[in-house]
Amino acid sequence: MTTLIDGTAIAATIRDEIKDDVARLKAQHGITPGLATVLVGDDPASATYVRSKRKACAEVGIESFGYELPATTTQDELLRLVAELGQRADVHGILVQVPLPDQIDEKTALDAVPIQKDVDGFNPANLGVLGVKGQRPVFAPCTPQGCIELLDRTGVKIAGKRAVVLGRSTIVGLPVALMLLSRDATVTLCHSKTVNLPSVTREADILVAAIGKAHFVTADMVKPGAVVIDVGTNRIADPTRKSGSRLVGDVDFEAVKEIAAAITPVPGGVGPMTIAMLLKNTLLAARRRAEK
Amino acid sequence: MTTLIDGTAIAATIRDEIKDDVARLKAQHGITPGLATVLVGDDPASATYVRSKRKACAEVGIESFGYELPATTTQDELLRLVAELGQRADVHGILVQVPLPDQIDEKTALDAVPIQKDVDGFNPANLGVLGVKGQRPVFAPCTPQGCIELLDRTGVKIAGKRAVVLGRSTIVGLPVALMLLSRDATVTLCHSKTVNLPSVTREADILVAAIGKAHFVTADMVKPGAVVIDVGTNRIADPTRKSGSRLVGDVDFEAVKEIAAAITPVPGGVGPMTIAMLLKNTLLAARRRAEK
Repeated sequence: MTTLIDGTAIAATIRDEIKDDVARLKAQHGITPGLATVLVGDDPASATYVRSKRKACAEVGIESFGYELPATTTQDELLRLVAELGQRADVHGILVQVPLPDQIDEKTALDAVPIQKDVDGFNPANLGVLGVKGQRPVFAPCTPQGCIELLDRTGVKIAGKRAVVLGRSTIVGLPVALMLLSRDATVTLCHSKTVNLPSVTREADILVAAIGKAHFVTADMVKPGAVVIDVGTNRIADPTRKSGSRLVGDVDFEAVKEIAAAITPVPGGVGPMTIAMLLKNTLLAARRRAEK
Repeated sequence: MTTLIDGTAIAATIRDEIKDDVARLKAQHGITPGLATVLVGDDPASATYVRSKRKACAEVGIESFGYELPATTTQDELLRLVAELGQRADVHGILVQVPLPDQIDEKTALDAVPIQKDVDGFNPANLGVLGVKGQRPVFAPCTPQGCIELLDRTGVKIAGKRAVVLGRSTIVGLPVALMLLSRDATVTLCHSKTVNLPSVTREADILVAAIGKAHFVTADMVKPGAVVIDVGTNRIADPTRKSGSRLVGDVDFEAVKEIAAAITPVPGGVGPMTIAMLLKNTLLAARRRAEK
């Protein structure tokens, strides 16, 4: 029987835990965790993401401070706002929503977020530390952390397992590979230059797909009994839907679920975990402030 | 025919190139690259290492400034010296020789070296960047960089190859794995918790051994035709030697050389490359100063 890893349910449990912890932090230290969200321009998808994040904050008792800047905002203006938020005692986490308009260098803007408030966990200084046993990043990046939590809360043992990560982005593939390594998996990183990819992915006890190609991972690429974590969110045409399209993962779910021991669906797998981990990081930031 | 990868000869070629570049930098910019070496205490092996490094500097025209502090030096005293060297315009690189005496926290001392003068490439902020295509660390760590240079100068193609790294230290295993990844290898990291290790190492087209166990990699762990880079330097008893001991690598050289396409000996493989890369990083630091 294949286990369906229900990210929606697991994220809900985590949000409940966070809600309790937020209430305790308020009661014991009088501190309400605060997240500043910075949205530049009118991208509707970005606006939707920020809205979901702020809604999730509200549900667990985290205060969110929304900043919406016009698409014409200069890099200097954005950097000034980020610096100001960096100083504020009631803002424990700062989230700069990407993508940013062309006149703003994304790396410069993200690097401007002080590492102590970088609840997205994007700071490059964190990246290498993720792979080092016994060291911890200031904040683990949300999506990779969400993948690990899904494995842990499904009871999947990581140590000693062969983990194969497909994709080496600095946002997902590389950090999740390093986190699996620090949990004692034997980790292989695959990418567009990998030769004979199916033979490599078939080695995986734990397969993480994060390449952004719809239905790329087919059943012949998966070892029977593997645990499959699908990070992809790709929109494909679907005339049967009113919207004309639907979201699918990097994995051919219908075929792979027949042979995997456990698998995440898309949507409802990794997706809900990302926001839950953002809340967790924001709580952690506020706790550190309380313990100072 | 197995290729013996002659690190001594390759390092000599690199030192000659550096010597020419140092002379050019002096002629064009009036800048002599400078390396400060900091040795704390009386460990004879450390003293020997520092001596070899300073000798190598002298041979290529790099000025070295030797600091020898007593074993009783406090952490504050060391940090003050490092800060002072960080300010000096004639010191382009700072090398704090490890191990340090017990009263000094090694990580604190190494992290105190300004990243622009960290010619050992130990700064943890560099680590993650090593695995990111199109990004470069301020300095690549010397031993991993030496491994990559050995492959390049032996004409070994890295892109698309399966590389297996045995050992995940922050000094060698992890950074060399990340560097191989950024060169488009499909990289697997193995370690003490890896299950059925021989079956994993046998997947390697390029096998890097960095676990510090004498003769650990036996012939049955190597795919015929693989390229083997042996980072280990282990001292074992040898009654036939006057000293009563000799240095050997992590690889059972005599057996593995029969099946490998190419292999580094120990000594005379990776070892000489580490110092050559230290010289290269110091030259690079001085060049950046010249270009300011």
